[in-house]
Amino acid sequence: MLETFDNPRPGRDYEIEIIQPEFTSVCPVTGHPDFGTIRVVYVPAKACVELKSFKLWLQSYRNKGIFYEAATNEILDTLVEALAPRSMTVTGEFTARGGISTNVRCTHEASA
Amino acid sequence: MLETFDNPRPGRDYEIEIIQPEFTSVCPVTGHPDFGTIRVVYVPAKACVELKSFKLWLQSYRNKGIFYEAATNEILDTLVEALAPRSMTVTGEFTARGGISTNVRCTHEASA
Amino acid sequence: MLETFDNPRPGRDYEIEIIQPEFTSVCPVTGHPDFGTIRVVYVPAKACVELKSFKLWLQSYRNKGIFYEAATNEILDTLVEALAPRSMTVTGEFTARGGISTNVRCTHEASA
Amino acid sequence: MLETFDNPRPGRDYEIEIIQPEFTSVCPVTGHPDFGTIRVVYVPAKACVELKSFKLWLQSYRNKGIFYEAATNEILDTLVEALAPRSMTVTGEFTARGGISTNVRCTHEASA
Amino acid sequence: MLETFDNPRPGRDYEIEIIQPEFTSVCPVTGHPDFGTIRVVYVPAKACVELKSFKLWLQSYRNKGIFYEAATNEILDTLVEALAPRSMTVTGEFTARGGISTNVRCTHEASA
Amino acid sequence: MLETFDNPRPGRDYEIEIIQPEFTSVCPVTGHPDFGTIRVVYVPAKACVELKSFKLWLQSYRNKGIFYEAATNEILDTLVEALAPRSMTVTGEFTARGGISTNVRCTHEASA
Amino acid sequence: MLETFDNPRPGRDYEIEIIQPEFTSVCPVTGHPDFGTIRVVYVPAKACVELKSFKLWLQSYRNKGIFYEAATNEILDTLVEALAPRSMTVTGEFTARGGISTNVRCTHEASA
Amino acid sequence: MLETFDNPRPGRDYEIEIIQPEFTSVCPVTGHPDFGTIRVVYVPAKACVELKSFKLWLQSYRNKGIFYEAATNEILDTLVEALAPRSMTVTGEFTARGGISTNVRCTHEASA
Amino acid sequence: MLETFDNPRPGRDYEIEIIQPEFTSVCPVTGHPDFGTIRVVYVPAKACVELKSFKLWLQSYRNKGIFYEAATNEILDTLVEALAPRSMTVTGEFTARGGISTNVRCTHEASA
Amino acid sequence: MLETFDNPRPGRDYEIEIIQPEFTSVCPVTGHPDFGTIRVVYVPAKACVELKSFKLWLQSYRNKGIFYEAATNEILDTLVEALAPRSMTVTGEFTARGGISTNVRCTHEASA
Repeated sequence: MLETFDNPRPGRDYEIEIIQPEFTSVCPVTGHPDFGTIRVVYVPAKACVELKSFKLWLQSYRNKGIFYEAATNEILDTLVEALAPRSMTVTGEFTARGGISTNVRCTHEASA
Repeated sequence: MLETFDNPRPGRDYEIEIIQPEFTSVCPVTGHPDFGTIRVVYVPAKACVELKSFKLWLQSYRNKGIFYEAATNEILDTLVEALAPRSMTVTGEFTARGGISTNVRCTHEASA
Repeated sequence: MLETFDNPRPGRDYEIEIIQPEFTSVCPVTGHPDFGTIRVVYVPAKACVELKSFKLWLQSYRNKGIFYEAATNEILDTLVEALAPRSMTVTGEFTARGGISTNVRCTHEASA
Repeated sequence: MLETFDNPRPGRDYEIEIIQPEFTSVCPVTGHPDFGTIRVVYVPAKACVELKSFKLWLQSYRNKGIFYEAATNEILDTLVEALAPRSMTVTGEFTARGGISTNVRCTHEASA
Repeated sequence: MLETFDNPRPGRDYEIEIIQPEFTSVCPVTGHPDFGTIRVVYVPAKACVELKSFKLWLQSYRNKGIFYEAATNEILDTLVEALAPRSMTVTGEFTARGGISTNVRCTHEASA
Repeated sequence: MLETFDNPRPGRDYEIEIIQPEFTSVCPVTGHPDFGTIRVVYVPAKACVELKSFKLWLQSYRNKGIFYEAATNEILDTLVEALAPRSMTVTGEFTARGGISTNVRCTHEASA
Repeated sequence: MLETFDNPRPGRDYEIEIIQPEFTSVCPVTGHPDFGTIRVVYVPAKACVELKSFKLWLQSYRNKGIFYEAATNEILDTLVEALAPRSMTVTGEFTARGGISTNVRCTHEASA
Repeated sequence: MLETFDNPRPGRDYEIEIIQPEFTSVCPVTGHPDFGTIRVVYVPAKACVELKSFKLWLQSYRNKGIFYEAATNEILDTLVEALAPRSMTVTGEFTARGGISTNVRCTHEASA
Repeated sequence: MLETFDNPRPGRDYEIEIIQPEFTSVCPVTGHPDFGTIRVVYVPAKACVELKSFKLWLQSYRNKGIFYEAATNEILDTLVEALAPRSMTVTGEFTARGGISTNVRCTHEASA
Repeated sequence: MLETFDNPRPGRDYEIEIIQPEFTSVCPVTGHPDFGTIRVVYVPAKACVELKSFKLWLQSYRNKGIFYEAATNEILDTLVEALAPRSMTVTGEFTARGGISTNVRCTHEASA
């Protein structure tokens, strides 16, 4: 579902950050909805992610049961496969459950 | 009392931060309640801490007499023993007593 | 347990606000701790509440099972009985449970 | 689905505010998710709304297509029917769509 | 260009607020762009304004030379003509020019 | 020095607020510079104040020795004379001197 | 010790607010220092308070044992005696002691 | 269109940051306006950019269709060509579209 | 006057931060009171500072004439002598005098 | 005009930060006043700058025509000549002109 477009400046290492504060999924144990912000920072190689398809793809988590740690890693893996970026960090900042907030941050570096 | 679950992505070094702003214990000298925020940041190895058991375990401090420095170190030691993480930092940010606030920060690194 | 002292300026209607951000009690259903801020605003008549005894008295809720609505009304009733103020408002601002925050505000006016 | 409990202090007019910052529904035109905060302020008569059932009931909007104005009015109508409060105001504060944020505020007063 | 839809709850007086923080027009004297936030609060009668057409209509100011005071009054007049609301306030909050910020607030009340 | 332009909507009572955060004058006693924000809120009658001339006119205070109370009243008097507004409030918010901040607020209402 | 100067605009009712965030006195029970902000808002009649003498006079509380309620009322009484203002409100906002903050607000209105 | 002036202190490496929070261009796909903040940080060599010409030059994007990534890189390239700075970073912080915000950051270092 | 207690975890290098926002001393030139925040961050060796004695010791500056730079260095020297910490930084953040704020930061590292 | 006093602790490298938020000069092109904050951070050698003379010396810019870049560098040069510090950074943070803010940061390191 993720679409990409050609990096307009492939000769330069530069950083793109995209922030979606309206991520929601479902807790696989309780069935209650989870909410959070997904933050992606990457240095593009050949391709950049197209924002509308990124938004629609994240919406596919809306009724999916998944833990915070798994979701954040899976989003990184899928984006890395689609974009083959020079580097990418995905951070999930999830709202409090039982009074406890959780943030998960994972990074991928392209091998040289 | 602490329960763990398998790290869903053991092949990647990534960071989990959990924040409990509702920690309370008792001052062993005055008997008055102390309040604070416990912040744990770790890179999991095989295991992640299960949030509900973490919350219940921290509740066991509610009526326990313990100093800030001892509490923060003890929380780190107990989590390290339960999770054997690649690294972990525990920070206790305690509200003012006599007008003076105290923060304690301790770090554990797994030996190579 | 609540102590009072003589209003130093009974001839003037003036306002005293006292704020305790470290209130805690226990949910009578789940047994989990609740946390909140208790805010009292009153116009004293003959007596003012002594702060240390107020603090100790609020600590007596620490291990007591009580709902938000009942706790806030009960704090107002007890203070009104002890102080017979010209007017008093007690507000309880409780931290989120299940993602939902609750505030309760009750007011007493002395009958003319 | 909404459950209630007896007002613990029916002899006094006092105010209860409950805030759910994790409301989500679906735009009936575009099919995209909408997000917002639902804020309820009421003076209870005989009954108060039980928080867990309120949370679950709001979750029933998760996959429902409804406009902001209709949702906010419908939440007020349903709560008024369930609680027969002395007065109630429901506010929906919805996040930006096309760069434009919308707030809707409706009030019900019991007839004397 | 402004489209409307039927008020879903015409029997109740309630308030709708819409906020567009990305308004821009052109200063008729200097030709430089002006920027501001347009905030509309109204009590609908028969009709509500459709958000997408509102957004497109405000975009028609993008290359139009107009003063702050005239723009804010004109937006109120046009919305009043299209919606015939029970009451409406339009506020324009314009960013600093020569270090000086300007806000303009105009109100329309339907005659009884 | 103050210039005005015709009120574009004289048939409606509406409010204009202009904020100059870069006011400076000189303390007539110590000779040290004073700094503050001048905030003008008015309902125009026939005329509105032109912003550039307002800015230049306020700059005439830059090397003038004047107290806060006198400056704020004088700004109101001069604007009232130039604009004959339906009502006007001028507020001067001055930065701390000797650790003490001062705000002065004066209002003029046109006689009916 | 308080000095005054002639109100530069006695024909107009206007408001002067002076804010001293560096008030300190001593608790008469414990001997520990107390800290707070004193905020005075008044409508002057014939006289305004001179700021430097106000600052020096407030410094006379530095090593004086006095309760919050008494200090705030005494500051109002002394200023009223020195200035005979049309109206005056003094607010003392005191920092937390034992985790509890206190604000005291008293008002004087000149009799007609 | 960009004008420059001589660096007043070419013998010292120092940093100049210029921030324009009122950048606007047009989305080449939808035709809708985009808004953002352009932040330029550079170490000047022989020349500094003149602010008024910089402002006018950025205004030339007002009705131009261009993507975020291309705009930010193009601004960096044009400034580098005009100024030949020792180093320069351009950051574009764009407001949310479809709920998603985007920041783009590109850096140029002069070759030794 | 400073008391210490045994470091509960001497085998680990960890950080303790204590913040006293209610420091006050006297300017040796003008005799006016100075106010500030004292922030101490240290890695304890054998001993930690006891908070109540620290608070009382800082109160001994209340009526002492001393400059900001001297006070901050003296606090560091005294704490280092009492605690022999592995490292310590003392920061004094002093409120504005004549409109100018001052911060002083000094660090001690134990020699190896 | 700048006066200095002996560094009270010349044997230790420590940092002094002084912040003057009320700097003003005049634009040499337009003649309009400029406003900004001057922030000085330095490690003193033999001498520290006396604050009152620093304040008076900065006031000498009040009616002087000078560009931001030149002013910030000149302040650094003058302070370095007067104090011969081990290191010093001067930052000028200037308020928006034409909507664009400018910050200039220059550093001096004593040669070894």
